[in-house]
Amino acid sequence: MTGFYDEHSKVWLAVDCIIFGFDEGQLKILIGRRQMNPGRGEWSLYGGFVRGDESVDDAAGRVLYELTGIKTLYMRQVGAFGKIDRDPGERVVSIAYYVFINVKDYDDRMRLERNLMWVDIKDIPPLYSDHNEMVEKALKMMRQKMSTEPVAFRLLPNLFTLTQLQHLYEVVYGVALDKRNFRKRIKDINCIEKTELIDKSGSKRGAALFRFNKKLYDETLHFKL
Amino acid sequence: MTGFYDEHSKVWLAVDCIIFGFDEGQLKILIGRRQMNPGRGEWSLYGGFVRGDESVDDAAGRVLYELTGIKTLYMRQVGAFGKIDRDPGERVVSIAYYVFINVKDYDDRMRLERNLMWVDIKDIPPLYSDHNEMVEKALKMMRQKMSTEPVAFRLLPNLFTLTQLQHLYEVVYGVALDKRNFRKRIKDINCIEKTELIDKSGSKRGAALFRFNKKLYDETLHFKL
Repeated sequence: MTGFYDEHSKVWLAVDCIIFGFDEGQLKILIGRRQMNPGRGEWSLYGGFVRGDESVDDAAGRVLYELTGIKTLYMRQVGAFGKIDRDPGERVVSIAYYVFINVKDYDDRMRLERNLMWVDIKDIPPLYSDHNEMVEKALKMMRQKMSTEPVAFRLLPNLFTLTQLQHLYEVVYGVALDKRNFRKRIKDINCIEKTELIDKSGSKRGAALFRFNKKLYDETLHFKL
Repeated sequence: MTGFYDEHSKVWLAVDCIIFGFDEGQLKILIGRRQMNPGRGEWSLYGGFVRGDESVDDAAGRVLYELTGIKTLYMRQVGAFGKIDRDPGERVVSIAYYVFINVKDYDDRMRLERNLMWVDIKDIPPLYSDHNEMVEKALKMMRQKMSTEPVAFRLLPNLFTLTQLQHLYEVVYGVALDKRNFRKRIKDINCIEKTELIDKSGSKRGAALFRFNKKLYDETLHFKL
């Protein structure tokens, strides 16, 4: 301790995670019942306190790893939430992060052990503290990101049909998209690559499977959808 | 004190401000010599500690008001900077904000009293702690914002010429723009409104003065430049 800043007051610093998943045509987030007081039992995002020996980003990474067992998640900061009375217990400032998870990568037993629930973004219940506000801001940011960067693929299996991709964009933006126009735009994005594989689960004729080619994206850095 | 979170450690929380101004064809930020230890005398952004009785946003507003005497500044959060050793003194997490200021609104005596300096974004010296990183991130965010929302006008006088507007976009994006294309795009944006007034300072013939019409913008919310 150096005493440089002793005249100023300190705060508790937390991280909270908005975990997005795309499953059965729905965009969902992961919420649970708060395990501690104040507010025990309320619906809440998953979070934790920032420790003295870790950066804020690392704290979010740790919390997510504890929760999912996955280390390389697509994670972006939403921002600091710092109203005086946002937490009913004490002065806590929270840094929110949003994360994309491929639902299939997430061991459902871990989810059940932690009593977590996937909930459609259209049906989010009132959450603890300002967590609903965090979700709203995260949604706004992820919409912007998905229109200019190839991050949607983090929410899809490695191989996907164009129908799946279209459904994802439809639920993220909350609008129906014209199939022909959508496919025309896909054609202009060379990092969305058609494979020789066919998915026959949806129809007899089947649908071509596509994949995201990161190498092609890195060459041009062009993405607009 | 309720004791809910006593087992967790606390941190000092600061705000730091990236204050953008557009003057004489240059995009600048306001920096000063750090007034306290550690790092006294180093070039630094202007900031301060968050007090117990104010939200994080309010802390940034207070710091900016103390500095500029202006209350209604365009202010947006850049994000939390939270590396463990980012501050050489203690564990301090800082929330950065960027602000647009119309240089003409800022009393230059206040600037001189506080020993602050406008510096071109192309010539920013090494700054204290991670402040250069904050500036980079703020620049990235303000570029994105300026292309989709009518915020550039916060950096211009109420009445401006299209040449001024073009110069602003040129220095923000660091590229020369084609005058004819730029003006064609301006024509599509109905909230950029031509007035009957002429600025004769630049040439004998003069240049038409324009203004931003917020009411027209609010009707369509369309802006793309």
